[in-house]
Amino acid sequence: MTDMLAPGATIGILGGGQLGRMLSVAAARLGFASHIYEPGANPPAGQVADRITTAGYDDADALKAFAESVDVITYEFENIPTEALDLLEAHCPIRPGREALRISQDRVTEKAFLQGLGLNTAPYSDITDLNSLRSAIGQIGTPAILKTRRFGYDGKGQARLRAPEDAETALAEMAGAPSILEGFVEFSHEVSIIAARGLDGQVACFDPGENVHRDGILHTTTVPARLPPAQRTDAVLLAANILNALEYVGVMGVELFVTPQGLIVNEIAPRVHNSGHWTQNGCAVDQFEQHIRAVAGWPLGDGQRHSDVVMENLIGSDMDRVPELARERDVALHLYGKAEVKAGRKMGHFNRITR
Amino acid sequence: MTDMLAPGATIGILGGGQLGRMLSVAAARLGFASHIYEPGANPPAGQVADRITTAGYDDADALKAFAESVDVITYEFENIPTEALDLLEAHCPIRPGREALRISQDRVTEKAFLQGLGLNTAPYSDITDLNSLRSAIGQIGTPAILKTRRFGYDGKGQARLRAPEDAETALAEMAGAPSILEGFVEFSHEVSIIAARGLDGQVACFDPGENVHRDGILHTTTVPARLPPAQRTDAVLLAANILNALEYVGVMGVELFVTPQGLIVNEIAPRVHNSGHWTQNGCAVDQFEQHIRAVAGWPLGDGQRHSDVVMENLIGSDMDRVPELARERDVALHLYGKAEVKAGRKMGHFNRITR
Repeated sequence: MTDMLAPGATIGILGGGQLGRMLSVAAARLGFASHIYEPGANPPAGQVADRITTAGYDDADALKAFAESVDVITYEFENIPTEALDLLEAHCPIRPGREALRISQDRVTEKAFLQGLGLNTAPYSDITDLNSLRSAIGQIGTPAILKTRRFGYDGKGQARLRAPEDAETALAEMAGAPSILEGFVEFSHEVSIIAARGLDGQVACFDPGENVHRDGILHTTTVPARLPPAQRTDAVLLAANILNALEYVGVMGVELFVTPQGLIVNEIAPRVHNSGHWTQNGCAVDQFEQHIRAVAGWPLGDGQRHSDVVMENLIGSDMDRVPELARERDVALHLYGKAEVKAGRKMGHFNRITR
Repeated sequence: MTDMLAPGATIGILGGGQLGRMLSVAAARLGFASHIYEPGANPPAGQVADRITTAGYDDADALKAFAESVDVITYEFENIPTEALDLLEAHCPIRPGREALRISQDRVTEKAFLQGLGLNTAPYSDITDLNSLRSAIGQIGTPAILKTRRFGYDGKGQARLRAPEDAETALAEMAGAPSILEGFVEFSHEVSIIAARGLDGQVACFDPGENVHRDGILHTTTVPARLPPAQRTDAVLLAANILNALEYVGVMGVELFVTPQGLIVNEIAPRVHNSGHWTQNGCAVDQFEQHIRAVAGWPLGDGQRHSDVVMENLIGSDMDRVPELARERDVALHLYGKAEVKAGRKMGHFNRITR
């Protein structure tokens, strides 16, 4: 392990939201300092980071100074401009690597990549205009969902098509952005698997969690998920397949639809993932530490789970529940230090240890 | 709970060592910002705190500004000068309160307080000069141990007396400081109990841990401790007795000698305690969060343990073991981000989950 960063090294983190915040804390636990790069003022991660740079992704001087001040760069979100990555990479390694970012930044590229690995995805078609959309509807049918190829998250940049007549309205919602039409998948439930790959190629997966969404935002993740042993194994192998193909270093979230015909990959996220927050109270090494271990060239934790957990997000005014939740036995709160409560904003989460 | 600090409030912490560091992280987890007050440069806690004030305990302006910037003040060590506390308290509540500090700052006062509660301590005598020491030896016998009344920790400021003839040498080691002679207690092992009391008087205790020391410094804490159920109950009642007598708010470490005749209180520490670090990987709410909950007026966690744990300190060159420990299954590392490795310096610890 000559590539193992020594305690005292600095982890650079692009993005200062709650994921960057929890990555900072995990880095500190291993004796690393963290340096956050974030355009917005007073980022949640700044409260627990050693240093913050407040600058845009178009600020070449700030990017260079940041890259020179850290020993490795990682990120909490995938939509980092390519030019910024080029500048940073000239000075410091970026982990997970560029290929994972390139693929996950574009839904069409991602689906093609996954199918190229022999994995199942929803049927999809690249949409450039109304004609291509109509032709795609002819192939895929309705109901279907139209999404921007890039920059979508938590249900944003999406429009449902109940019938072929919805084509024009749905396309208008994309506001001219390159889009993808995805067919509906009949699934019984959604699970996600949080997988990690080390610098030495070691792969470790946490137990799959079962996700429930509300209004397009993750509501709860429950471990263990309802998943027969064979499908559990499928999920692990499939995740390892993706990580190895990308020579990935770090934690990845892989969302899967469970169907009677097998697992269908919904999407991948080249970072720690909301559906992995349960690991904070279910495992000795959680997803945040696992990610820091990977990008720092450390051996991975084995992902073993010591407790059953239900993770629930606190969105917007759910913060009013905090006083009551604080009283509940077996509930561990994780709040993000965001100054302003807004509707739809992730303010925190809690892990309820159920066994 | 009208006194419950809302997320977004700021916790002021006196002292920026590893305890302040882990308190900062726990505060962040509950959505609080932390502000560290520390005379030394680059304190470990500063890497994970929202703000740091670098100033001495004699800097009235800095103390006032600090107190005005925070919503409650707590501390990671007990030897804070009284004058500084007076200044701070004029602007902001200090928790745990002054009485706990007054008592635990002085070994003679502490023993008198404990005996006043009907608790057993080692036999002791206040030492002012060679005459009082000789007379105390006559009463208490040897072996015995001479300690400074104030400012001792991790075996510092202590001298053993094997025989009455050691009196003069031992007293010289105290360098004129007011001292205490303590008789030796024949004990089978040492346990400590980490107890907490909330603003509303609620008391919660973690399971007692069994401590092993090396060279006067804590080496390991093992939970569960070897302790018959009746003595386990005694330990909890005894800790609750101490906390209630002080109208204490926060976490306290109580070190106990286990003897066939019952439990003997060795010492109390009005703060989170090294022997409570196991709670980080054994409980949903650890001692650091428990302390923050108490001083913030929140309901306490119930102290329930989900795993058996052996905590081991990493002292000085023990840091060389980190690469190997990082590979071990069920080991959770907690490193303190201290720039320089020194002999006898606490650099980190790890929790091994044993069941």
